[in-house]
Amino acid sequence: MERIALNTVFGGSHQRWRHRSAVLECDMVFAVYLPPGASAAAPVPVLYWLSGLTCTDENFMQKAGALRLAAELGMAIVAPDTSPRGEGVPGDPDGAWDFGLGAGFYVNATQEPWRRHYRMHDYVVHELPDVIEAHFPVSAKRATSGHSMGGHGALVCALRHPGRYASVSAFAPIVNPSTCPWGEKAFSRYLGDDRVAWRQWDATNLIATARERLPLLIDQGDSDSFLHTQLRPALLQAAAGVADYPLTLRMQPGYDHSYYFIASFIDDHLRHHAAALKA
Amino acid sequence: MERIALNTVFGGSHQRWRHRSAVLECDMVFAVYLPPGASAAAPVPVLYWLSGLTCTDENFMQKAGALRLAAELGMAIVAPDTSPRGEGVPGDPDGAWDFGLGAGFYVNATQEPWRRHYRMHDYVVHELPDVIEAHFPVSAKRATSGHSMGGHGALVCALRHPGRYASVSAFAPIVNPSTCPWGEKAFSRYLGDDRVAWRQWDATNLIATARERLPLLIDQGDSDSFLHTQLRPALLQAAAGVADYPLTLRMQPGYDHSYYFIASFIDDHLRHHAAALKA
Repeated sequence: MERIALNTVFGGSHQRWRHRSAVLECDMVFAVYLPPGASAAAPVPVLYWLSGLTCTDENFMQKAGALRLAAELGMAIVAPDTSPRGEGVPGDPDGAWDFGLGAGFYVNATQEPWRRHYRMHDYVVHELPDVIEAHFPVSAKRATSGHSMGGHGALVCALRHPGRYASVSAFAPIVNPSTCPWGEKAFSRYLGDDRVAWRQWDATNLIATARERLPLLIDQGDSDSFLHTQLRPALLQAAAGVADYPLTLRMQPGYDHSYYFIASFIDDHLRHHAAALKA
Repeated sequence: MERIALNTVFGGSHQRWRHRSAVLECDMVFAVYLPPGASAAAPVPVLYWLSGLTCTDENFMQKAGALRLAAELGMAIVAPDTSPRGEGVPGDPDGAWDFGLGAGFYVNATQEPWRRHYRMHDYVVHELPDVIEAHFPVSAKRATSGHSMGGHGALVCALRHPGRYASVSAFAPIVNPSTCPWGEKAFSRYLGDDRVAWRQWDATNLIATARERLPLLIDQGDSDSFLHTQLRPALLQAAAGVADYPLTLRMQPGYDHSYYFIASFIDDHLRHHAAALKA
C-alpha cells in the first residue's frame, strides 16, 4: 500500500492510498478521513460512501462538506473509486460515461469481458473493509451511504448483507436499476440477459424479502433532472410499504442531482449513521 | 448577462453568470451564492472571495464548505474568475500556470501586451460589485477574503480602498509579492521593471501607510509547501507591528495549502466578516 496524499482537515486526516486489489485484479485508490482522536486505543466507526457515475474517491471528500461534522461525531469516512481502473481493465467500447470505467454499478459481473475485473460489490463489502480495518484505527462498526449509482450500491450492500452495517442511507439513489436506462445498459452487460438474476442487485426487489430492518433515510431533490427517468424513488417507497420496511423518503423542493444537494443534507445523514453506530 | 447554472443549496441559491466586462474587454463568468430570504426588501451583505492561481469561480463554491454558514448568517458570497479569459486574451507564452490565464494577480497591468485585458483590480473592486449590486438583492456592505494569490488580492483591495469594505481576511496570502518568485514573475510582466511601482500592489508595503484599520484575520498552515518561498506571513506581521495595524495571524499546525485547509477554518472567517457587516 502506498499513501499518495495526506491533508490535515478539521483536526483529523484525509489520506489517499493506492493498493493492489486481489478481487478486482488491478490497483485501486481509495480515500479515508480519520477524525481527530482516532487511535488503536480509541477506534472509530466507519461510513463507507459510494459515489455516482464518473466519480472517483475525490468527489465526496472535496465537495460534500461532510468532514466538519464527521470530525465532531468521531466518525471515519471511506470513499472508494467507482470502478476498477488501469491497464487491462476494459471500458465502454464507445467511451460512454455511464458504463465501464467510473461506472461499476457495485455488482459482481458474470459476463465476459467484465467478469474478471468488475467485482465492485465484493470489493466494497469485503476486501476494502478488510484493508481498512487492518491498517487504520477503526472498529468493525460500519455504515454505508451513497449517491445515485452509489445510492443503489449502498442499498444493495446493506440489503444483501444483514448484520454487516449498522445503518444505511442514500442521496438520489437508482432504486430500481432493472427497469431504468442506466441500469438496463449496465446489468445487461455485466450480468447478461437473464433479468431474474438482476433482482439480486436491485433494491426495490431486495427490500421485499429483507431479513433486517435498518431504518433507511433517502433524500431526493424534486428538481433532479434524472428523477423521473432513472431514479424513481416512488418505486422503492411502494415496495417498502408492502414489506413494511422503515423508509424515510424526503423529497427536497428545488434541489438537483449535484453535490450542492448532497452538501445541504449530509449532516442529517451523518447524524442518522452516528446514532446507529453508537447504539 | 446570461445565467449558465442554478443550484439550490442550503435553502439558498448558487448561480453562475456570464457577462461582458467593459473593464477587461472580454466575457467573464462569476458565481454568486444568495442565502435564503435575500430579497429586494431584505438585501444581504456580500463577501467577495478571490481565488488563487489556476482557479475559476467554481473552486471556492464547490470545495470550501462555506455555504452552510453563509446561509445561516444571511450573507451572499461572490466568486469571480482569477483572470480575463477567452479569444484575444493573451496567456503565458510558455503556458505556465503561475502567470496569465488563471493568474491575473488582481492588479491593473500597465505593460504590453497585458494592459488591455489584465485589469482585475478594477474589475473586482468596482465593475463586479456594480453588477452585483444592480442585479441581485444585496446591500452595499462588502467584505473581502481570498486564498494565496487571492489572499494578496483581498488585502490589496482593502488596503487601497478605505471605506469600501467592512472587513478583510485571508488564507495563506502572498503577503509580499514584490519579493517572492510568483510575484516577481507576475509584477515584472504586468507592471514593468520599476519596483517602486510594485509597492502599490503589495500588502506588506501598503500596510505601513494604511489609512483604515480593519481588523485583519489571516490563517496559515505550517505544513504549506509554499510557506517559506512564496507566502512568508512573518513579513506582513512585522510590518503590521511597526504600523500598529490590528493583525491576527494564526499558524495552523499540520495544515497545507489546499481547500481542506480553507474548509477547516472558513467558518471562523465568515463569523469575522458577519460581525463587521452587521455592525
